[in-house]
Amino acid sequence: MRSVAVLGATGLVGREMIKILEERDYPVSRLLPLASPRSAGTKAVFRGEEITVEAVSEDSFKNIDIALFSAGGSTSRKWAPVAADSGSVVIDNSSAWRMDPDVPLVVPEVNPEDIPRHKGIIANPNCSTIQAVAALWPLHVEAGLRYVNISTYQSVAGTGMKAVKTLKEQAETVLRGEAVRDDEVYPHQIAFNLLPHIGAFDDEGISEEEWKMVNESRKIMHLPGLKVSGTTVRVPIFRCHGESVTAQFEKDLSPERAGEILRSAQGITVEDDPRKAIYPMPINGAGKDAVYVGRIRRDTGLDNALSMWVVSDNLRKGAALNAVQIAELL
Amino acid sequence: MRSVAVLGATGLVGREMIKILEERDYPVSRLLPLASPRSAGTKAVFRGEEITVEAVSEDSFKNIDIALFSAGGSTSRKWAPVAADSGSVVIDNSSAWRMDPDVPLVVPEVNPEDIPRHKGIIANPNCSTIQAVAALWPLHVEAGLRYVNISTYQSVAGTGMKAVKTLKEQAETVLRGEAVRDDEVYPHQIAFNLLPHIGAFDDEGISEEEWKMVNESRKIMHLPGLKVSGTTVRVPIFRCHGESVTAQFEKDLSPERAGEILRSAQGITVEDDPRKAIYPMPINGAGKDAVYVGRIRRDTGLDNALSMWVVSDNLRKGAALNAVQIAELL
Repeated sequence: MRSVAVLGATGLVGREMIKILEERDYPVSRLLPLASPRSAGTKAVFRGEEITVEAVSEDSFKNIDIALFSAGGSTSRKWAPVAADSGSVVIDNSSAWRMDPDVPLVVPEVNPEDIPRHKGIIANPNCSTIQAVAALWPLHVEAGLRYVNISTYQSVAGTGMKAVKTLKEQAETVLRGEAVRDDEVYPHQIAFNLLPHIGAFDDEGISEEEWKMVNESRKIMHLPGLKVSGTTVRVPIFRCHGESVTAQFEKDLSPERAGEILRSAQGITVEDDPRKAIYPMPINGAGKDAVYVGRIRRDTGLDNALSMWVVSDNLRKGAALNAVQIAELL
Repeated sequence: MRSVAVLGATGLVGREMIKILEERDYPVSRLLPLASPRSAGTKAVFRGEEITVEAVSEDSFKNIDIALFSAGGSTSRKWAPVAADSGSVVIDNSSAWRMDPDVPLVVPEVNPEDIPRHKGIIANPNCSTIQAVAALWPLHVEAGLRYVNISTYQSVAGTGMKAVKTLKEQAETVLRGEAVRDDEVYPHQIAFNLLPHIGAFDDEGISEEEWKMVNESRKIMHLPGLKVSGTTVRVPIFRCHGESVTAQFEKDLSPERAGEILRSAQGITVEDDPRKAIYPMPINGAGKDAVYVGRIRRDTGLDNALSMWVVSDNLRKGAALNAVQIAELL
């Protein structure tokens, strides 16, 4: 049995973490929901019991075995070392530690062998990276990945609870025929619109989310030279991310063989009969655990390449579920 | 002065054609709105005047100089030869004639020189192809295009008037917390969802829209060997298509130089200052004429490659405007 703290317990991902610990019957001896002082005092529900959310402090992590963090980069940079020094193993969902060479970055279906190398902190990858590498890894094992081109279709749930509310309110406003007012969540209207803007931009005009696709994919799969093109776009859907993926391999890999491999891969569900309108969709993936793969086909542009469409719940496999799966392997 | 018929005058694109003929002061001596017998009898408005929509017949095209068609493939296969035999020049927005070697497929900014080769029918390319090649062509002229990877984010306006209504009604239903009922426009809910399904699928699982991207791009740019990867996705926005484009060139082409070239290219507007949240968006492009290009950057995956984000109004440059521009060059 383990004592588990969840930092960021009042956020979308934190709530999902608590729910998944319960659903998967994780051996929790004690659950400690933590948040910023602002959110402390509210209640979290675990196994039917209301537990008061405490403000995170120097003493929070005493006697905590596992600390699941989902509280943003700066909070994580401050509190993860404190928790690790207290003897907890931190599984952190922010981007703060992901590229630290001392921190394993883990998708359990891909690189579970990296977990034991941790020094108190394990990083949970970015949502869009997790679902992409989960689908690409079994194909890489078979045929050797050379190049990946990914365009994302990302839901507002990735931005948090406020963004879900924003999409709903803006959509209502547009449908009433009124003008959408500025709001603090996104720089522009998201309802019935597309924003090719996730995270800050570097000097070259590449976004943080795009660099995460490149760098985290390389680290998780231990392919430092992998060529990755990425464009990340926010779309007006509530939950689940879609991804258009083109993957080029060293060896020839037929769509049929790729389908077979993915059907038998851990954590993947293949939905692929497009003539019967069967393919992954966000409205079906929301609330589910799998990474859904469909539209697996010969790529029309590159040799030895496939294109496919990958959908997964960004709050579950893209965040909370992946973190709990790491905790299960500890 | 020319007599102009518009077949499909009651549809989204047909209406836009009539509006654009008026806006651009096309020298129309007579405007004849045509439609199927079902839609005949309704009114079209041109230069403030109501004109009764006539049912298309064998006699419709007598003394018509230019026949703008936007009425679907089978209607076009039936009536385009009739119009051409009557001496009209047909500019057809369906996919019926696009790959016919005797039919020029034209984007005026790219291959106006193909227009005079027509034998009575000129084809207007597919919406997603037009905006892609408009942005790619000036870069090709500079640096030689080798490979293009395009993922589309396509609005429901491309499907027609019913689909616009469907998105609106389904979104209202979802926002009321009710379940969306099946409807005839799409195989699944489109509101707050993504459908990687545009057109029918072939035996390999590649969609018609994806083949259009490949084959039409090659024909328009006269690059029969161009390597094109395409994934086409319907997204829950009303009007304008977005495209994530990765383009690899024979020669090195810096993002700065590409921006310069596109800024001086015909029909292109560059909106590219992502740190100030300036990039093309469907809500801004709707109702406008330009192909908007932004997020022009070094591609992180391929040598000599750029990635960019392209938005354009699929009813205007993607359909009606491009057709009228062809008519202007006749």
